[in-house]
This record gives sequence, C-alpha cells and structure tokens, in this order.
Amino acid sequence: MNEVKLSDAIAEALARRGIRHIFGIIGSANAHLFDSIYRHPQLNLICLHHEQACVMAAHGYYMQSGRMAAVLVTAGAGITNALTGVVGSWADSIPLILITGQEATKQFKGNNLARMIGIQGVYTDQIYQTCTKSVVTCQTPLQAYEEILKAIRLARQDRCGPCIVDLPIDLQSAKIPDNDLKVMNSRYGTETINSDKSLSVADFNFLLEAFSKAKRPLLWLGNGLRRLPRGTIETIINQLGIPYLTSWTANDLIDPIDRLNAGHAGTYGGRVGNLILQSCDLLICLGTRLAIPQKGYVDDELAREAEIFVVDCDPIELAKLGPRFSNKYLADAPSVLQQLHQAVLASASLHALSYRPWLEHLAALQEAFPIVEACHRSPGWINSYEFMYHLGSAAPANVTFVTDMGTALISGFQVLVPRAGQRLFTSQGLGEMGYGLPGAIGAYYADPSRMVVCLNCDGGLMMNLQDLHSVIGQNIPMKIIIFNNDGYLMIKHTQNAIVAGRRAGTDRASGLTCPDYEPLVKAFGFFYLRLTVEDRVDTILEQFFSNSEPCVLEVFMSPEQLLVPKLSVSITAEGKLISPPLEDLSPLIPLDKLRHCLGVPLHPNSLGLQRGTEDAQGDAIY
Amino acid sequence: MNEVKLSDAIAEALARRGIRHIFGIIGSANAHLFDSIYRHPQLNLICLHHEQACVMAAHGYYMQSGRMAAVLVTAGAGITNALTGVVGSWADSIPLILITGQEATKQFKGNNLARMIGIQGVYTDQIYQTCTKSVVTCQTPLQAYEEILKAIRLARQDRCGPCIVDLPIDLQSAKIPDNDLKVMNSRYGTETINSDKSLSVADFNFLLEAFSKAKRPLLWLGNGLRRLPRGTIETIINQLGIPYLTSWTANDLIDPIDRLNAGHAGTYGGRVGNLILQSCDLLICLGTRLAIPQKGYVDDELAREAEIFVVDCDPIELAKLGPRFSNKYLADAPSVLQQLHQAVLASASLHALSYRPWLEHLAALQEAFPIVEACHRSPGWINSYEFMYHLGSAAPANVTFVTDMGTALISGFQVLVPRAGQRLFTSQGLGEMGYGLPGAIGAYYADPSRMVVCLNCDGGLMMNLQDLHSVIGQNIPMKIIIFNNDGYLMIKHTQNAIVAGRRAGTDRASGLTCPDYEPLVKAFGFFYLRLTVEDRVDTILEQFFSNSEPCVLEVFMSPEQLLVPKLSVSITAEGKLISPPLEDLSPLIPLDKLRHCLGVPLHPNSLGLQRGTEDAQGDAIY
Repeated sequence: MNEVKLSDAIAEALARRGIRHIFGIIGSANAHLFDSIYRHPQLNLICLHHEQACVMAAHGYYMQSGRMAAVLVTAGAGITNALTGVVGSWADSIPLILITGQEATKQFKGNNLARMIGIQGVYTDQIYQTCTKSVVTCQTPLQAYEEILKAIRLARQDRCGPCIVDLPIDLQSAKIPDNDLKVMNSRYGTETINSDKSLSVADFNFLLEAFSKAKRPLLWLGNGLRRLPRGTIETIINQLGIPYLTSWTANDLIDPIDRLNAGHAGTYGGRVGNLILQSCDLLICLGTRLAIPQKGYVDDELAREAEIFVVDCDPIELAKLGPRFSNKYLADAPSVLQQLHQAVLASASLHALSYRPWLEHLAALQEAFPIVEACHRSPGWINSYEFMYHLGSAAPANVTFVTDMGTALISGFQVLVPRAGQRLFTSQGLGEMGYGLPGAIGAYYADPSRMVVCLNCDGGLMMNLQDLHSVIGQNIPMKIIIFNNDGYLMIKHTQNAIVAGRRAGTDRASGLTCPDYEPLVKAFGFFYLRLTVEDRVDTILEQFFSNSEPCVLEVFMSPEQLLVPKLSVSITAEGKLISPPLEDLSPLIPLDKLRHCLGVPLHPNSLGLQRGTEDAQGDAIY
Repeated sequence: MNEVKLSDAIAEALARRGIRHIFGIIGSANAHLFDSIYRHPQLNLICLHHEQACVMAAHGYYMQSGRMAAVLVTAGAGITNALTGVVGSWADSIPLILITGQEATKQFKGNNLARMIGIQGVYTDQIYQTCTKSVVTCQTPLQAYEEILKAIRLARQDRCGPCIVDLPIDLQSAKIPDNDLKVMNSRYGTETINSDKSLSVADFNFLLEAFSKAKRPLLWLGNGLRRLPRGTIETIINQLGIPYLTSWTANDLIDPIDRLNAGHAGTYGGRVGNLILQSCDLLICLGTRLAIPQKGYVDDELAREAEIFVVDCDPIELAKLGPRFSNKYLADAPSVLQQLHQAVLASASLHALSYRPWLEHLAALQEAFPIVEACHRSPGWINSYEFMYHLGSAAPANVTFVTDMGTALISGFQVLVPRAGQRLFTSQGLGEMGYGLPGAIGAYYADPSRMVVCLNCDGGLMMNLQDLHSVIGQNIPMKIIIFNNDGYLMIKHTQNAIVAGRRAGTDRASGLTCPDYEPLVKAFGFFYLRLTVEDRVDTILEQFFSNSEPCVLEVFMSPEQLLVPKLSVSITAEGKLISPPLEDLSPLIPLDKLRHCLGVPLHPNSLGLQRGTEDAQGDAIY
C-alpha cells in the first residue's frame, strides 16, 4: 500500500485546485508544510516579514486576479499576527485558505485550558470563530486532508471568505494511504459549485414591474458581482442602458461606461453620485452590503424618492437592514443581474424604454461637477486631489492602484476614475492602515505583467514598513507614493470635529513622529522622487512612470488639507447644528444649484444652512 | 449636579490608581480618550507605530518596573493588531489594561452578526475571550467607568494578566454625574488586594517534613514570585541557604547569589542547572508553570531522584500537570516562600541543617562547566555565545537586556548571568518574534535612568521594524544588537532535524531575504557599529557602551551556528535514535564526567550513546 506524507499531499491538493501562490512565514510548527510546498513545481512560496502582510497580500492577489491564494503561518504568534488580514478579508469577502501550524495533537487532549497549550499553542478556533467561514483544529491526518479540501471549496462558495485549517505539527509528517486520498479527492472534486440562486418568478416579476415603471432607475453594483467574468458587467449595463453606481469595493469590477457611470455615493461620495442616488426613483442594489459610509446614517433619507430593492446572498447582511429596505431578497447578485438582462432583451416593451431625460440629467451633473473643485486648492502645498487627477491621467492603461487608508484612500477613490484597463482597490471593510503595501505585493504576484502603484500616507505605511524590503528583496518593480501630511490627517479632522481641534498623537507636535522617508527608502534600495509645490507635477510623474526600478515618490501636502467633498454636520444662520441629507456635501454648494442639480424636492435640512459663494465651493478646476 | 466627561474621568482614574504611561495609537474611535489622557498632567502618552508594539511595550514596562501600564487602541484593526501582544502578556502573567475604542453602542443593538459592525466594529469579546482575564464591551457610561476600575484591579490580582475594556465612541464623550463616580471610586478603592493564600497547616507541615529530611533540596523560582519587593527573594534564599533554579521568566527577579545559583534548567538549560535538577532529592517549584522547555517532555524523568512540590495560584496550571506532580498546591507562591522562611528561622533544628556536601557539589559543577564551551567556537565567525560572555562582562551594572527570539533568546539566556543590578528578560510564553524592540522601549519608559540593550536577530527584528523610528523620534538612547545569521537560524536547525536539512524560507538562498541593516539603521538615525571576526570584540564593545546616541551593533555570526547545549535526540553505537534524559545535553559530555557530575545513578538512555572527545564537547573556554 502506497503512502504519502500529509504535507506533500496537501501541497499537491493546493496545486490541483488551482492555487499557485502561497504567502507565508516559516516556524518550527509549519516546517513540514513549508518544505513540501517549496518543493512543489507548480507552487510559488512567497516569504514576507509579518503574517498580517501575508494575509493582506492574499487579499490583494484575489482583488487583482479573482484567483485564490493560500497563506501559511506557524503556531503561536504566527496565528495571532494573521488576525488583521483575516478580518479584512472576511469583511471584503475575499476567499483564502489560511493554514496554521499548531502544537502537537497530544497537547490538545483532555480539557487543557492553560494560558499556553504546550509551547506555543493558542486557541485558534476561539480567536477566529467570528471572522472566518470555518476554522478547524485537526486531530487526525485524514481529517486534516479533508479539511483542506473543504476549506478550498468553502472559501470560494457563495459569499466568499477566509477558511482556516489549524494543523498540528505531528499530523503534517504523518503518512496517509494513497487510497484514502483518492476517496477524499473524488468526494470533493476540484470545482467550486455556487448555489446559483436566482430570484423566484414572483419576486422577479415584482422587481420587473417596478423596473418597467421607473423613469430614473439606478443600479448600485457591489462586490458580490465579482464572480462574473471580466467584461460581462460592462456588456450587460451597456445593453440595459441605465446609470449605475459602484460601491468602493466594486470599483474595479467594471471599466467605466462614461455615459452611465455615476461614480460612487456615500459620506465621501462624489457630488454626482450622491445627487443621482438621491434623485433616482428606483434603486437596485446588487451584492453590496450597504455599509454606513455608503448609505449614510439615516436610512429613511437614502434615495428618498426611490423604491429600493436589495439583492444579497448573505442572509445576515439582509437581516441587518432596517425597514427602509423592505424589498430585500436572498439571492445571488450575478444571477439576478443576468435575469434582469435576459428579461429586458426578451421584452420588446422593456427594450424600447427610453431614459433620455435621466441620462441627460446625469450628463449635466457630470458637466457641472468635474472631480477636482476649487476646495481642492492648497496654496503652498501639493493638494492630493489635484495630484490624483494628474496621476490618473499620466498612468498607463495597465496600471493597478492599490491604496492604503487616509488621504490615499479618500482622495484616491474620490478622484481616480480608472480608465479602461486601470484598476483601483484597497481593503475597504476593515480599512486597516498598512494594507496598501502588502496588498500591492499580492497584486504584483497575481499579474506581474501589470504596473502596480501603491498609494500610502506617512502614518499608515509604518504599519507594514518591514515589507518595503520584500519589494527590493524580491525585485518587484513597484511604484510607491507616500503622501506626507505629518501624521494621521483623517484623525486630525476627527479632532477638529469632536475635541475642538486639540491635537494628541496625530502629528509631530503632539507626540507622533514619522520618519524622514527619503534616506529611509533609499536605504531600502528604492529610487526616490519628491514632489513639492516648487516642482512640476508632470515632469515628476514622467520620471516616476518611466523609471523601471522600484521607486518611491513622496508628495508633500498640507498637514491640514481637507478631504472633501464630505457629508458634514453644518450650521444654520441661527447657529444651530444640522445634519444635511446625503446629496448636500460640504463644502455646501449654493442652494439654487443644489435645487437645480437634484431635480427632486430639496430636503428641509438643506434649507437654512449657511453657504459660501459659488467660487469658493462647488467650482471646478478640472 | 456636576458632571464629568467619561474620557476625562477615566484618565483621572488611571492616574489615581498609579498608572503613569499609556502606549497607544489614535483612531477615530478612541479620539476622546486620547484627548483626555494626553491632557492629564500625570499621564504620559507614548505613540508607537503598531498596536502590537504598544502592548509589547506595556509588557516590557511591567517586567522592568513591576508597575502596570495601559494601552489605548482604536476600533477595527487597532483591536486586532493588539492580539499578539495580549497573548504574550497573558502567557507571561503581565498585568495591563487595554482600552479599545469601539463602534457606537447603537451598532451593537439587536443581534447584529454582520461581518463588520457599523464601520469598523469587530467582536472584541469573541476574539479575546481565551487570552484575557476579562473583556467587556460596555453599553453605558457608568458601566464603562466601573469596568475600568474593575479591570485595573483584576489585572493585578492573584495571577496577573491583561484585561480589556471595549469602549464605544459614544460613551467616551458622555457625561457622568460626579456622585456616581464617587460611589464607584469608593466601591473599588485604589489598592489591589491579592487573595494571599498561604498553605494550610496540614499541607505546610507535609512540605516542612519533606524539607527537614532533604539532603539536596532545590528551589525552582518562577514568575509567580514577581510580586515580592525587590531584594526580598535574595534575603530569604540567602538565609535558607539552599540552591535555586530560576525559570527564564523569573530570571530577573533575583540578583544572583553565586554560591546558591544553579542557573536555568530545561531543554536549553545550562549543564549545571540540569545536573542539579536531576540530582536533587527535593524540588520545590514556586510560581512556575513548568512549561515544556523547562521540564522537558518526559515528566517521569524530571528530577527523578526527588520528591516534587508545586505551588501555584492558578488552578488551571496545576490541573495540566500529570501524575509526576502529585504534591501540588493551589496557593500563593510569595506567601509560601515566606512561610518556609519563617518556619526555618523559627526552628532551631531546621536552622541548623547543613547542606555543605550539596553546596560543594554545586560549586564543583560551576567549576567544571563554565558557560562558554569548546562547542561555542565558530571559526571564521563571531560566535553568539562568546559574544554574550563579553557583552555581559563589559556592560555596566544598570543595564537591562531585552531579547528578541532565536539566537538572541537562546544564547542570551544561556550565557548572560546578570550581575548585581543587571536585568535580562523577554516575552517567554508566546515567544513572538519582534518582541525585543518594543519590549525594550517599554523598559526604557519604566526607568529612563537605566541603560537598555536590545538583543535581536536579523529575521525577528523585521516584525517590529517600524518602531526603530520611535527610538529615534522619541530620543531614546537605546543600544541595539542585531545578530546577523542570514534568516531564521533556529528554524534551520528544525529543518536539519526534520526535513533532512532542506531549506525553505529560512535564508537568502531559499526565498527569505533580510535587508542590509547598515544603511537602513543609519537612515533611521542610529550610530552603526559592526563586529566581524576581523574586529576586536573589546574595542567594539567599548565604543558601543561609551556612545550616548541610539546605537546599533550588528554581529556577523555563522548562518549555521549551533545553539547549544541542548537536549537532543542522540544516536547509539548501533545507530538507534534515543532521547537522552534532561541532564545529558548535547554535545554529550564523556560518560565518566556525566556520572561524576550527576552524583546519582545514570539514566539507562545515557549509557549507549555515541560521545565525542572531552576536548570537543564539554570543555570550557571561559
């Protein structure tokens, strides 16, 4: 009877099921698996310098390619260090398999509740039970093999997410009979089958009824559509011919269709996106979890002229939605989008519907509100919004932008509308500082033919600073931008809002210092460029893009720059604080312009607010 | 009725209960607390660049000073990033209070099980329930205040450990009536009362009976004695006049008493420590959890000539011990040590007991096995053991050594016997790479009058590389040593043992590269020194210690250097693999010498093993 070492069998199982990259760090508790994976001809083992970075790289890898990566960490701190990446992947529905080395099975016998199990044993299942699709500490070799197969399948099934197989060291070197492996392999197959849930006929007809009556329909496309082959969404939307919003997470799923693209909506939404959202009469949300930054805080005011339909495959996300979302359906967003598409193609009357006034309204808004406004001027500094505009224009079509948080996130997603072929993503749900760099490393390995540009701030980059070396050590031709705003800019704005502007731990003067990046990144081995208000943006960007070495561009922006437009508490002429509706972003545009652009009745909260002059606030630069 | 903002009240409560330092990182969900703590005149807020580092700094702070620090992180990734430090503190019984910013209370209403609660809400209680003494997500301001007071008390009570108060942002700015605060303050007091559990008369008499008969008694002092005032243990042990071992965690609790100090025992124990352990006839373990690296894998062979008593205040640690440890008592180790002391002082007969032969045996072993042996020669390289010997000799009395893992840990704890006033510690229970640097930062803030020397390896330092900047940014005159061994040396030895020496992710040639530290640390702002076999150790160390700037010394050691002596599977003349007993460390010393030094019958497993010549193996250099 032939036998195979379990760790070899696992490596083979990963390879057969399409996994090509494993991000990991070795320790004594995963050394067998490291050995087997490293030696497997189809697998690439990428060593980074913190387990959190390994998981974030797997996140970026999936965002770029739609392919799942594996992560391999060791016991103890290997397991605990992975947590932030796992929670981020959980929030963003990223499939990944995390294999954790663990103390030997005998240490888990009985009811051992000691603070450390054996030498470096931690309670993986307890820690991870609320942020994974499955987490199992294995007790026998065959169970371990089965759990690997189950995890690979489950991670990609329906709403994707991370799965953990916790693998005691003694099992890794155990032998399994060939026959047992064969039985398991045939039981689980190599394909992931989704539960392809379309809407029932009754539910779909109800939706179609609303659709047929709508004059101003709007689709809100979410991350749940990611499973569709690239290009499919464009084709469908083009044929439906109705405007769409994308959630920030779904930003990279569709090459923008200019005449239909309303951009993003939300508390940091675009003016166009929020106005369209608030003036539509039918809103169909497909596979978006309607996070607070998207829908705002007051459900009743969201798309207040519209009937709302929500389609999501996760019953828990539907359950969290309040009474404003009465038409909610547990179904598969890709299937429903395709159902709608087929129905419109099949029905002469639907096919003939014209949305000309609605599309003209969108076009007028796009014209009225170009992305970079007068409020984005920062005299004496580079403004991140202006810079983003130039960056997007200068970048080639095969660029992938991966952002970190803060300025990079907000001005990136507010300004960079990726042109055909360009991509832009980050870790949206958890929004952890430090994601950018490892996320970009993952994107690189997912498709080395693309150019990867990683957007960071001086504060957030510190959280995974160690892996600047991995870029150099692994010869990744990455381009990195660092927005230098002296600390944590977004939190300075929080302090302005809630503690009368007092600083504490947000900048150099209040106890938070960031390094001088020029000597530091040069020491790592990067080519360094800086951009200040003295420099020509186009010249610097040309150098940045033409350089083939790993390169860092540091952009010196105002330490107090506003991140706007933004939904903000505002003040009336009488000095009263009021929360404006979602369409009324700060800086507030003149009331007449708001009324004109909204096209439906104004919200009462917009009426009494103090507003500046047109020139200062809603005006376009570009 | 006067009211106080909760965040101000919490700052005041921390100060009144003796907390002086808070390590933290700001975010939007802890901004009120940051503001209040930053403005409090008695509190020092130290900002680092990763939450894991903040918790590890609080660990080092307590190890240095015996005083508790607080840690303040924000919601989402702030909470998840803290995990590794918390698990390390949990394992090492480090008291600390971790205050985590959290999403607003309204997001926790109902049965919200979504993947992200609100914007950045995670399930703090689920993640942390198995690695903290308490974790509570607060729902009202008064409850929050009470939980803070409870946590401060509980963290320091009996077996210490971390406590978490999860504090939604809306509560932080809520107002509490003065009267309510007063009621709470008087309910909880400002002192922590330990449950001072002495042994019962019957149990103590049983112990005393064994003690009175013992010819070769040995104390094993553990971390559970940390609560005793400094100097107390020396006084007691000196008066008892019997040999002692310390666990690695308890290493810094006692200034060594040369005639009684047997050092450490365990799988990486000293030869003296293991021989004394295996030849004693009474072993009293006080407040040590007898981790596997300490007691070895085979309980029945531990101190096989001795009756063993174990005293621990944690019933779970006692429950994990097998039948070899039948005399185990749930009691407070400091109390029992003092009980024993009093009994001996009070009894003329006990007081008169002489242990001369036993002490002479110890002295003979100390003479026979100086710490640095012939096996610590590495031709062509600096050997970390030789280096440690010189380092300890050259260091001043007020030095605190904080080690990271790997070479720094093993050769540090095997060689550095801190002279009076010197200290040496690390994170022992979890043993997470990256602890060294933030642990050393914590030690500095606990007592800035001391010199802090942080011992790292090229692999492990990467895990908290970002906080090299904090040393510079906060003007900490820290001295840092980096052992450069091309990757993860200990795991290379694991690979030698279990996968025929094949490398994967452990060195430059197998996919793991570490940066060139010279330009890197210079760019951070450190003074840089290097030590290779070409250099004079004494000259370099003199420069290292006389320099007043933050300074890095990189030590180039063999990428394959042995970390020995070590308990290793060994081979008989017939080629059979055998596990030797704990006293028979590799490189194996000659059998005659072992027999002579052990003083009790040899273990059968020692008899047939292949042994080298005296010169190559047990011989002393220093």
